[in-house]
Amino acid sequence: MRISELSATGKVSVPTIKYYLREGLLHEGRLTSATQAQYDDTHLARLHLIKALLVPGGLSIATAKAVLAEIDHPSAHIDVMLGAAQHALGDEPPPEVDLSRARQLIADLGWRADACDTVTFGLLQRALDGLDSAEFTVPQGLLDIYAAAIHHIAEQEIALAPTDSPEHAIRYAVLGTVLIEPLLIALRRLAHQDASAARFGDSNKLRVGD
Amino acid sequence: MRISELSATGKVSVPTIKYYLREGLLHEGRLTSATQAQYDDTHLARLHLIKALLVPGGLSIATAKAVLAEIDHPSAHIDVMLGAAQHALGDEPPPEVDLSRARQLIADLGWRADACDTVTFGLLQRALDGLDSAEFTVPQGLLDIYAAAIHHIAEQEIALAPTDSPEHAIRYAVLGTVLIEPLLIALRRLAHQDASAARFGDSNKLRVGD
Repeated sequence: MRISELSATGKVSVPTIKYYLREGLLHEGRLTSATQAQYDDTHLARLHLIKALLVPGGLSIATAKAVLAEIDHPSAHIDVMLGAAQHALGDEPPPEVDLSRARQLIADLGWRADACDTVTFGLLQRALDGLDSAEFTVPQGLLDIYAAAIHHIAEQEIALAPTDSPEHAIRYAVLGTVLIEPLLIALRRLAHQDASAARFGDSNKLRVGD
Repeated sequence: MRISELSATGKVSVPTIKYYLREGLLHEGRLTSATQAQYDDTHLARLHLIKALLVPGGLSIATAKAVLAEIDHPSAHIDVMLGAAQHALGDEPPPEVDLSRARQLIADLGWRADACDTVTFGLLQRALDGLDSAEFTVPQGLLDIYAAAIHHIAEQEIALAPTDSPEHAIRYAVLGTVLIEPLLIALRRLAHQDASAARFGDSNKLRVGD
């Protein structure tokens, strides 16, 4: 198909497709003349993937590029790939950030994690620092509940990870990280509404027409 | 204290404090002359709160302002407040977005949620659309596991919500939403590493020096 058709089918404007081509997120089409190229279903599938990473996944172009590179050129060992994919999804924390509390928390939980993955430990440390900064204390009991519930989720997800090919494994790891996070966040906010109605009474009827 | 001292103690630059004052995020100090004002511990506490919302919470200035307004002028009923706080934390989805799948999912789960809270249903719908767009299928069994684990977390959180004053309740709801989300996300990524090491073997030692 021509770029105009790729644009119509993929619901992405031609200038945006050209931008993805320039940035190397999308592979080039097959040149049929000096100014025209043909695109196929692989381009369409890739466009869907890029859209998913950028919009609901909320990734920047640079991060999406790193993630797509990981999908295109996966490492040999699935466990290494999972770590590399997560690493690609975040920014290196500034060197002055002390990660010791994040490391201690994971050590206390007895979880095995890549000690060199400063990106993910940095995410956890930033979350802990934010709670401190707002003087918002999480009781140890609640922290244990978070850890147990989240670990339960992670176990089930890893149990379902495909192992037939490195491409599939990495795609699952990256998309599972980026696309499921907004799902869990949205579910938690709605679960709060339900739990709140259960505890404080259902006053939702008052809110029609807010 | 003077603004310079507030800046040093709160670790926020003077121009940034002035910006917060202009934007109405921070309340004015007590004027001691035409060009000087005195600040106190309420300003310091507010600065910490603003920092927590903006940096780890990742909110924009406009959203932080809406959230702080909710904290400053809470509604009468705690259940209404929780919904209003969540509403303030997101953007209204574009009118063309069809929220029916998000509503159906919550109805299927049997959760009570504010049907008028299009912001939070919009978040869920966007997450579902992202999964579709990437052709990433979540098996029903896994979706049920997500819902159960997240609802369990939400119940425990709502059980701990303070009810002594509307200010405390809303502060808890807003900060609990904004500050715990990054914590859960970071924990999930690290839990994946642990679950992956358990399933695929611990190859982390290979990764030292990545």
